[in-house]
Amino acid sequence: MNVIQNIKEMQQVITSLKNSGKKVGFVPTMGYLHEGHQTLMKQARKENDILVVSIFVNPLQFGAGEDLEAYPRNFERDSIIAEEEGVDILFNPAVNEMYPRSSTVKVIVEDRTDGLCGKSRPGHFDGVATVVTKLFNIVLPNRVYFGLKDAQQVAVVDGLIHDFNFPIELVAVPTVREQDGLAKSSRNVYLSSLERDQARELYQGLQLAKRRIEQGERNPEAIEQLVKAYILKTCDAAIDYVELRSYPQLRPVDTIVGKVIIAVAVKFSKARLIDNIILEIV
Amino acid sequence: MNVIQNIKEMQQVITSLKNSGKKVGFVPTMGYLHEGHQTLMKQARKENDILVVSIFVNPLQFGAGEDLEAYPRNFERDSIIAEEEGVDILFNPAVNEMYPRSSTVKVIVEDRTDGLCGKSRPGHFDGVATVVTKLFNIVLPNRVYFGLKDAQQVAVVDGLIHDFNFPIELVAVPTVREQDGLAKSSRNVYLSSLERDQARELYQGLQLAKRRIEQGERNPEAIEQLVKAYILKTCDAAIDYVELRSYPQLRPVDTIVGKVIIAVAVKFSKARLIDNIILEIV
Repeated sequence: MNVIQNIKEMQQVITSLKNSGKKVGFVPTMGYLHEGHQTLMKQARKENDILVVSIFVNPLQFGAGEDLEAYPRNFERDSIIAEEEGVDILFNPAVNEMYPRSSTVKVIVEDRTDGLCGKSRPGHFDGVATVVTKLFNIVLPNRVYFGLKDAQQVAVVDGLIHDFNFPIELVAVPTVREQDGLAKSSRNVYLSSLERDQARELYQGLQLAKRRIEQGERNPEAIEQLVKAYILKTCDAAIDYVELRSYPQLRPVDTIVGKVIIAVAVKFSKARLIDNIILEIV
Repeated sequence: MNVIQNIKEMQQVITSLKNSGKKVGFVPTMGYLHEGHQTLMKQARKENDILVVSIFVNPLQFGAGEDLEAYPRNFERDSIIAEEEGVDILFNPAVNEMYPRSSTVKVIVEDRTDGLCGKSRPGHFDGVATVVTKLFNIVLPNRVYFGLKDAQQVAVVDGLIHDFNFPIELVAVPTVREQDGLAKSSRNVYLSSLERDQARELYQGLQLAKRRIEQGERNPEAIEQLVKAYILKTCDAAIDYVELRSYPQLRPVDTIVGKVIIAVAVKFSKARLIDNIILEIV
C-alpha cells in the first residue's frame, strides 16, 4: 500500500495509472475506520482496478462548537485496516496541504440542504461539497463510494456530480449496522454504555415508522410524530430532528409516495447520532 | 473538425484521446471569434496534441440588464475560423444541455472580486467560475488558455485552479490589439465610428500611466486620476472604473511596487469596454 500525503504526487500517480487503462475506485473518509468504511472498500475493491482511500478530517465541514478537535483519529490503526482491505493508495494529506492559504473560491449548496442536517449545521454541506470537489480533482476517480448512513451527503454529492459534470459514477452503499440495528459510526465510541443500549432505539423507531407506512399511513407528519414519541420514550437524548422527505431531492412531501427518506438526528451527552431509512412507496 | 453538442459524448471522446496519451489544450470562448481568440488557438495548437474550443454564451455570468440577448453570435462564421485554426473539436452545447435543471450547487468567488469588474458586475465571476468548473470537467484539458484582456478573469481562474486542485495548467496570453492599440473584443462591433476612433484612447491612457510610473510615480491614486482625466478628455464615454491593484491578488496597494495591474472599464453608448496593462516594478 502506497501512502501519499502530497497532492501533486497523488495526481501524477493516478494519472499514470489511468493512462495505462486502470479504473479507479475512491472511498473518501475522515478516518477512524469501521465496518461501514470497510464495506465501502470491499465493494470498491471488487468493482475497480485501483482502490484509493482518503483520510482527511475536513475543518471546513465542522461548524463553530462542533467536534472538530474531538473527532476521533487513529492513523496507525486506520492504515492497518486499509492494508487488510487491499487498498492500493491511502491519501492522507495534512490540513495545510489541502488548505495552504485562504481560499479564493468555495462551493455553495443551494438545494437539498434546507432540512435535516443542512438546517442544524449551517455551512456543513458547503464544506463537504468544497472538499469533495478538491478530492475529485486530486484522486480523479472513475467511481466514488459513499455510505447511505449519511443520506443527505449522498444527495448533495449526487447533485454536485450532476450539476458540475464530474465524469464520476456515484455508488451509494447501504448502511452497515451493529447486531442490534445501531448504524456504525466513528462517533459511537463517545456513547456511555447506557447510551449505547438506548441508541439501538433510533433504528427501532425507524422500523416502527416503516411498518406503519406499510400498514397504509400516508401522512408524513403522523410518521414524524410517531418516531419522535418513540425516541423520547426510549432514549435520554435531545431530538435534533425527525423528518420525512422525498429522496434524493429532499423536498417536504404532502403525502407519502415515491421514494422517501425518514431521517433522525439526536444528541446524546457527547455524541450526535444520525440514522435514516429510505423507502419506495408505489 | 468534430462538432460536439452533447456533454457525455464530449467526455467520452476526450477520455479515449487522453487514454491514448494525447495532451489536450482548451480555449473556452463565448464565440463571435476574433483575432484575440485566434491567437489563443494558435498557441494552444502549437503546445498540445488535441485542440478543443468551446463556444457557449453563459447566461450565468450576465447580470440583469446586461447584454445577454444582444451578445453577438455567428456560429457559421465561428466554425469556419475554428476549422482554419486547426481546431480538432468544437464544443457547442445548448443552454439546456449545460443547465438542464435548476442547479443544486454553484461556485462562489470570495477573493479577487471586490474591485474592477467584480464590483460593477456582482455575481459575474461566480457565473464564470461555475461554468469554467463545468467546462473543465467536460473537456478535461491538460492546459487551458485565457486572454489577459480579461485579466481579472485570469486571476479568478488562477485561484479556481489552485484552490480546487484542477490538474490543469493555466496559460495567460497577452492581449491582442488593433493597429491603433484598441484591445480586440467581440463587443467592439457595437461602437459607432466616432466611438471607435475614441476607443483607442483607453490604451493611450494606460500607456501614459506606464510612462509616468517609469518616470518614478509610485502613488496609485495619482495614476488612477491621471488615466481618468485622460479618458474624460478624449472619450464621450462614462468611466466605470480606473483601478491600480496588485496582480493576480487584486488587492489595493499603498505604493506601486511588484506586479501591478492598471485596469479600466468605460461605457460607450452600446458597448462596455475594458482594457488593462500589467507592469512589474522592481
